[in-house]
Amino acid sequence: MFCGNILVASLILCFAASQVLADEEFVMRELQVNLEKFGNGVVTEEFVEKVEFQQKKDVKYEPTWDSLDSRPLPTWYDEAKFGIFIHWGVFSVPSYVSEWFWNFWQGPTPHADVVNFMKQNYPPEFTYPDFARDFTTEFFDPEDWAEIFEESGAKYIVLTSKHHEGFTNWPSNVSWNWNSMDVGPHRDLVGELANAINKTSIKFGLYHSLFEWFNPLYLNDQAANFSTRKYVTDKTMPELYEIVNNYKPEVVWSDGDSGPVEYWNSTGFLAWLYNESPVKDTVVTNDRWGNGCACHHGGYYTCQDRYNPGKLQNHKWENCMTIDRRSWGYRRDALLDDYLTIEEILRTFTSTISCGGNMLMNVGPTKDGIIAPIFQERLRQMGSWLKVNGEAVYSSKPWRSQNDSLTDGIWYTAKDKAVYAFVLSWPKTNQISLGSPLANDKSNVMMLGLEDNLKWSYLNIEKSDGVRITLPTLPPDKLPCKWAWVLKLTGFD
Amino acid sequence: MFCGNILVASLILCFAASQVLADEEFVMRELQVNLEKFGNGVVTEEFVEKVEFQQKKDVKYEPTWDSLDSRPLPTWYDEAKFGIFIHWGVFSVPSYVSEWFWNFWQGPTPHADVVNFMKQNYPPEFTYPDFARDFTTEFFDPEDWAEIFEESGAKYIVLTSKHHEGFTNWPSNVSWNWNSMDVGPHRDLVGELANAINKTSIKFGLYHSLFEWFNPLYLNDQAANFSTRKYVTDKTMPELYEIVNNYKPEVVWSDGDSGPVEYWNSTGFLAWLYNESPVKDTVVTNDRWGNGCACHHGGYYTCQDRYNPGKLQNHKWENCMTIDRRSWGYRRDALLDDYLTIEEILRTFTSTISCGGNMLMNVGPTKDGIIAPIFQERLRQMGSWLKVNGEAVYSSKPWRSQNDSLTDGIWYTAKDKAVYAFVLSWPKTNQISLGSPLANDKSNVMMLGLEDNLKWSYLNIEKSDGVRITLPTLPPDKLPCKWAWVLKLTGFD
Amino acid sequence: MFCGNILVASLILCFAASQVLADEEFVMRELQVNLEKFGNGVVTEEFVEKVEFQQKKDVKYEPTWDSLDSRPLPTWYDEAKFGIFIHWGVFSVPSYVSEWFWNFWQGPTPHADVVNFMKQNYPPEFTYPDFARDFTTEFFDPEDWAEIFEESGAKYIVLTSKHHEGFTNWPSNVSWNWNSMDVGPHRDLVGELANAINKTSIKFGLYHSLFEWFNPLYLNDQAANFSTRKYVTDKTMPELYEIVNNYKPEVVWSDGDSGPVEYWNSTGFLAWLYNESPVKDTVVTNDRWGNGCACHHGGYYTCQDRYNPGKLQNHKWENCMTIDRRSWGYRRDALLDDYLTIEEILRTFTSTISCGGNMLMNVGPTKDGIIAPIFQERLRQMGSWLKVNGEAVYSSKPWRSQNDSLTDGIWYTAKDKAVYAFVLSWPKTNQISLGSPLANDKSNVMMLGLEDNLKWSYLNIEKSDGVRITLPTLPPDKLPCKWAWVLKLTGFD
Amino acid sequence: MFCGNILVASLILCFAASQVLADEEFVMRELQVNLEKFGNGVVTEEFVEKVEFQQKKDVKYEPTWDSLDSRPLPTWYDEAKFGIFIHWGVFSVPSYVSEWFWNFWQGPTPHADVVNFMKQNYPPEFTYPDFARDFTTEFFDPEDWAEIFEESGAKYIVLTSKHHEGFTNWPSNVSWNWNSMDVGPHRDLVGELANAINKTSIKFGLYHSLFEWFNPLYLNDQAANFSTRKYVTDKTMPELYEIVNNYKPEVVWSDGDSGPVEYWNSTGFLAWLYNESPVKDTVVTNDRWGNGCACHHGGYYTCQDRYNPGKLQNHKWENCMTIDRRSWGYRRDALLDDYLTIEEILRTFTSTISCGGNMLMNVGPTKDGIIAPIFQERLRQMGSWLKVNGEAVYSSKPWRSQNDSLTDGIWYTAKDKAVYAFVLSWPKTNQISLGSPLANDKSNVMMLGLEDNLKWSYLNIEKSDGVRITLPTLPPDKLPCKWAWVLKLTGFD
Repeated sequence: MFCGNILVASLILCFAASQVLADEEFVMRELQVNLEKFGNGVVTEEFVEKVEFQQKKDVKYEPTWDSLDSRPLPTWYDEAKFGIFIHWGVFSVPSYVSEWFWNFWQGPTPHADVVNFMKQNYPPEFTYPDFARDFTTEFFDPEDWAEIFEESGAKYIVLTSKHHEGFTNWPSNVSWNWNSMDVGPHRDLVGELANAINKTSIKFGLYHSLFEWFNPLYLNDQAANFSTRKYVTDKTMPELYEIVNNYKPEVVWSDGDSGPVEYWNSTGFLAWLYNESPVKDTVVTNDRWGNGCACHHGGYYTCQDRYNPGKLQNHKWENCMTIDRRSWGYRRDALLDDYLTIEEILRTFTSTISCGGNMLMNVGPTKDGIIAPIFQERLRQMGSWLKVNGEAVYSSKPWRSQNDSLTDGIWYTAKDKAVYAFVLSWPKTNQISLGSPLANDKSNVMMLGLEDNLKWSYLNIEKSDGVRITLPTLPPDKLPCKWAWVLKLTGFD
Repeated sequence: MFCGNILVASLILCFAASQVLADEEFVMRELQVNLEKFGNGVVTEEFVEKVEFQQKKDVKYEPTWDSLDSRPLPTWYDEAKFGIFIHWGVFSVPSYVSEWFWNFWQGPTPHADVVNFMKQNYPPEFTYPDFARDFTTEFFDPEDWAEIFEESGAKYIVLTSKHHEGFTNWPSNVSWNWNSMDVGPHRDLVGELANAINKTSIKFGLYHSLFEWFNPLYLNDQAANFSTRKYVTDKTMPELYEIVNNYKPEVVWSDGDSGPVEYWNSTGFLAWLYNESPVKDTVVTNDRWGNGCACHHGGYYTCQDRYNPGKLQNHKWENCMTIDRRSWGYRRDALLDDYLTIEEILRTFTSTISCGGNMLMNVGPTKDGIIAPIFQERLRQMGSWLKVNGEAVYSSKPWRSQNDSLTDGIWYTAKDKAVYAFVLSWPKTNQISLGSPLANDKSNVMMLGLEDNLKWSYLNIEKSDGVRITLPTLPPDKLPCKWAWVLKLTGFD
Repeated sequence: MFCGNILVASLILCFAASQVLADEEFVMRELQVNLEKFGNGVVTEEFVEKVEFQQKKDVKYEPTWDSLDSRPLPTWYDEAKFGIFIHWGVFSVPSYVSEWFWNFWQGPTPHADVVNFMKQNYPPEFTYPDFARDFTTEFFDPEDWAEIFEESGAKYIVLTSKHHEGFTNWPSNVSWNWNSMDVGPHRDLVGELANAINKTSIKFGLYHSLFEWFNPLYLNDQAANFSTRKYVTDKTMPELYEIVNNYKPEVVWSDGDSGPVEYWNSTGFLAWLYNESPVKDTVVTNDRWGNGCACHHGGYYTCQDRYNPGKLQNHKWENCMTIDRRSWGYRRDALLDDYLTIEEILRTFTSTISCGGNMLMNVGPTKDGIIAPIFQERLRQMGSWLKVNGEAVYSSKPWRSQNDSLTDGIWYTAKDKAVYAFVLSWPKTNQISLGSPLANDKSNVMMLGLEDNLKWSYLNIEKSDGVRITLPTLPPDKLPCKWAWVLKLTGFD
Repeated sequence: MFCGNILVASLILCFAASQVLADEEFVMRELQVNLEKFGNGVVTEEFVEKVEFQQKKDVKYEPTWDSLDSRPLPTWYDEAKFGIFIHWGVFSVPSYVSEWFWNFWQGPTPHADVVNFMKQNYPPEFTYPDFARDFTTEFFDPEDWAEIFEESGAKYIVLTSKHHEGFTNWPSNVSWNWNSMDVGPHRDLVGELANAINKTSIKFGLYHSLFEWFNPLYLNDQAANFSTRKYVTDKTMPELYEIVNNYKPEVVWSDGDSGPVEYWNSTGFLAWLYNESPVKDTVVTNDRWGNGCACHHGGYYTCQDRYNPGKLQNHKWENCMTIDRRSWGYRRDALLDDYLTIEEILRTFTSTISCGGNMLMNVGPTKDGIIAPIFQERLRQMGSWLKVNGEAVYSSKPWRSQNDSLTDGIWYTAKDKAVYAFVLSWPKTNQISLGSPLANDKSNVMMLGLEDNLKWSYLNIEKSDGVRITLPTLPPDKLPCKWAWVLKLTGFD
């Protein structure tokens, strides 16, 4: 989109002249890559982003939102599009209703289902921490998980290092006897998964809850209107440093941020994370760092769970959602209908990436360490679909239109001069009308996964009114994929 | 197939003359049904079977194979085609390797996997009966199960009342403290499921293992070369009478029949079952009643697990198989690949019914009482397929050819003058050649689930060489089903 | 009873002439022993008993009370005087209220304490059999127990092989998965203790409950007014044969005999026990063999728990009692006051043996296999007392008076021409008046454990009115024992 | 020490003149008490101590040993003589070998017994924190305990609020999910016992371990040679403030003080404890506050476990010892011989108090909340002995001789002009020679619990050589106690 020899030259001059240009070699190398890929006279947006980010790497961030928010998001994240969220913890033991089990049982507004479940199945004096012993994870094989994730086509994962229950899935120094090494698994779940993932090309990320529902230190601070900060200094901060230093996550996915930013010292932590941490150059974070942050500050925006605005956003965002419609943690009694179908997942996915978001899709492993087959199936369905259609997904950008002006259920992305249209339902007539792309006589249409060009025609004499594309008639086994077919449009305006 | 007024008349005379004709009204009523359905002059095989069976109902069977084997199989069974097998017991607690867990652990030839699993996860002195306390079944809702089974299109189910471990899923008088009421579930699993199933049109059946790996009474009898029979008189026989009298199963699916027929007193039990039991008129049994019985004596034949001979049998048989390739009991660590795909299931199913068999497909519920979503999905896939194609399945008969002479992967059934061809793979060319059906100019071809007739033509001038059928070209969403399409051929010879 | 040469000679003649004289050698050998011990011309009662018993050994008993009751009790039993009862079973797991826990919880008349205990400490669905897994016995060392019993001075023990709960403490063939090998201990508790005891001089005995509160076979028979006997033939009888054949107990202590004798087949079993069993010559039994038996038929009489009639009985009897006043099974929450003091125990013991009884004193081991220190202490106190005073106990006979005519709290036994007076309270005056023994000028009084004779005098001129004995004045550490001092009277009439 | 009117007057003047005299009223009131008790002209040591202490109450202590060590011990402590130590925690669950179970299992030098116990009885992955769930305390009734303690004659108790395992027996804010409210008991054990004890006249004290074997914060500090102090600031200090503020213990019994005093901030805490805490006027502490403290700094000295120097000390000290010779925590498999006899206990007790010490005698409750009967018995034996002999114990002072110069096994105390001699063994001759007391013609000897004076005589003409006392000859039931008789000597020099 940004082109011309002159621009290239002036960019180079501009960078060369810059005081903050850290690494001339880097720019020249990237420029070379750019030239090889696209020929003389073309500077891609990707190139510009990379160079900008390289420059920023040497900036020292201040612990203020102004400074922190100015950090460009490492490029890998936007390119990745698809990540896997993993909710795993002591809540995986009762594995009933949701990962909010403890809160629903003994929190301020108890849920009858959870309360009755405890009454019917446990002694009266049983407590939530008593569950920890049964968090056995005997079948947890991190290499198996890594393989399942790889086959799904996901480019990053985010594991709950600690959820609101406060149980740390690593042997934290500040959560003694309430962590996965001391009780239950007797394993460093975070460390084991990190090792396995790091042998793949997937990026490893960690979810971390700032608050803990029932931690007395937090409750005391809260009761003091957050004027005391014992919980933060003794628990949250040490934990965050531990997980970053020990496991070098490339996503730090903060949650449970009820409380002022000043209370949490979020900006202080982020400044360290961006300036000094072992992942300072590559890490991405989200926006849940204290009251008022969501959708406003931090790294990419998650805004709220299952955020999917349906139109282009001017800040990178993520739609975190879950295959089980009703829970992030595994539910033993979930029915088939509770799980999203692959068609539903793809509808969400394509609308998300078309509007500039990533999708972080959640699975809840069992307490014994298994990703249930129904989750495996959805992940594999995603993988098989991405094997055919990944070209339209990875490293793509939103197009000028997000969905089609004529036909519902068509979403767009763009990459390298091509435009991709995601067709969620195969038209009954085998023909599809698109209003947004402007065709000309050199325009070409293909379906990803097929070799031949598709026939297309102008909708009417006014060529600008859109095109009618004829889809192929194929035996069912010959379709490139079973759901959400992708048209690749080249030579359109 | 049996036709003509004369035949009808003579049949009526014949029956009327018969000494053993129990119920003239019955014959007349069935004849009326037959006339309404097929018009004058047609006597269906179904009619003949029903009348024969009605006659036999008043026979008293002797406790000999000659007599017992002469009993006609109640007709509902052959009409049903598809049943669901359910393996549930204490083995669902370790839920590892298979329902043979106990034997693999402590039996004559231990399996390393199971032995290691116990070493790594349990105290040295732990025993298999110690598992029973954790057979909790807290989520078992028999109405839910019944609904899942109904949606699958199955016409009968067979639940393990007791597997080789000896644990009875009902409160047996002769298995005190080793049954589902005294320990673990604290429920009458058999009774609860029977009640729920009996509110549907599904037939309720029970699996029962004669032997028990570790029952000392059995081991003593075995050590005495089956010359003593304490185990049989104190345990097996009382149990069989209990389950038949209490739960009135319409299938008694015997297993674990290692030992002589005389030892087991199988013929004595079957004589009672056929002559006096509350289900004497409707019950079906299988063929595992003692050494040498399988494939030779009893009711229908199961021969061996996953029996699927691939050609027509002259005795009714059943292919009992399981969705999990490796186990009948639930395995917590099963991977997606371990489960049969719906395509594999349908291949097995169509080949089975084409050759005269029923398919009894197994699911293994979890210890907490859930039929895992992956099983639900397979069952629902079966159900959606049968909703379209059930016409070719239920009450069908094998045709004169079981599979096609020209094209592989085509299986046949027949019913009411129609022949049904199951097409497992959609042909690349959209055209399919069939060698077995003999066409004439009145022949007609349809695809179940579609309204229009399909085009067909003779393969060559010699009209007897077969036909070429052109399949419809449809958008994927318009296909009548996603797998295993059925052609209905009428007017063929 | 004590006679001269003539009697000896005539006895020999008598025996020699007898048709039933089995073993002439035996008589001559015993006669020799008798002569060596007591000099010429004395035939002891012991000799006569032994010879009589020897004769009876060859009698074949009929399964009638007339015949069975005619069997002389093997002499070891009366000589033993003191045995230890051991109540151990699944009830040792809840270890609360008493060994009737199950019945008190779920039987016809529930006890609030037990019902509440379950409500407060266990899940609603918990059952009694679920307790079995926690019957761990990890500290059970049968050699330790044997040593504790030996030090107590007991001559026999009686272990609950099975209490009313039905759980067998040996791997019974007819109590599969409800026995100590299959669940809980994973050990043959009966066998291990038998082996350890058999290395000592203590006799090994077994308690066995005929009925089982909740066994469905028993409940069915009971509901049929004992007209069916399935429970007896399948459970009770096989068990009794198993324990006798496998462990050769010298006491078979029957209990739980609610039901007719004919139902239980008690006479049949006893005939076998006396005629053919491996312990036929030495075994003793009690009197709980069916309705109406207690205090009337069988071996020695137990009549009812804690039976202690306070006067001489004309049939050998046993006072079974327990150190914990409120329970036979171990109670975790027992207070010190719940345990009998050694003074109380000795009061019971001396009154029991003076009236011809044995005392069978109960201890309840813990679920982990320990005889609690408080029990050890009582047993050791008994042992230390018997070390000094055993002469007055073992092989003693009731005297003509059981307690003194003048002074309360004095009980008597006799042996070998000596009379023993048990003084339960040391008189304040240091002097004690005895009305029953008739002194003469050769009479002599000692205190067991001291060397010097004690001073005594006639109470008044009528020498027949009794004697006044002056007890020694000794520093506390010099007393022969701390409680229940024994006076040995020789040369009295 | 005992002085006349002049001294009284000058004392008053002295106090009146003193700048630090806080409370003139107090002095006058105490003086009045003193006059009423002893008549004019007598100022008891007790009075002086009380006044001194009152004065000191208003001193502000500095966080230095010089200052802290100058604080007079509150007088109740020396008067009390006898306290009960209670070791209770998660170690009460395995209840094997000792309360050091965890360290013996997984610490630097494992004990084979403990290691094997775990191997034989638990799954390989079981951890110590997993035990917590079984710390059930269902029978814990703090009122019962209080009653048992009262009957023992003890004047204070010391409960482990937290042992080296780190598990807090109260709901600490800084030991989340590793405390008695969150897991196991689900009760505030410290609080419940404090409430019950506070209804009696017994003083309530708390043991607290500074270090925790396996707390990662401690281990990190230790690895840094105690140059970091995160463990102290985040864990130890908050805990100590919590227990003092919440439960107001009158004994703070510190232990586990491995590390420098500066690391622990012991002096800082003690300054607060003495100056500002809610128990500043009455609390006593011991001497385990950091390396080099024991026997040198703090409150009373404990020096080492079972410290019993056998001679008079010039600083108040305590002999902490335990009834079970081998463990402070309850051992399920302890044998009777493992428990001290009452004779052994009294020997230790009398030698301890004679030399100026208190005895703190330990009992280990069971995990279900019971003080085992054998412990109850020892405590009740102490109580029965103290009921007779408490006069010689409570508020007594060491005499000028601690034990007798002539006869072994005689220990002395003094109070209010009387001297008390503890006679551990009753002399065979009934006569006892004492060399230390100097008799005169007005001297008088009694035995506590008896009314009559005992006969005594000079040992020889030199009256200063000692006296021979004739003990009474009494029937055993008339002795004032069963062990350790006390002679009260009045009018001796």
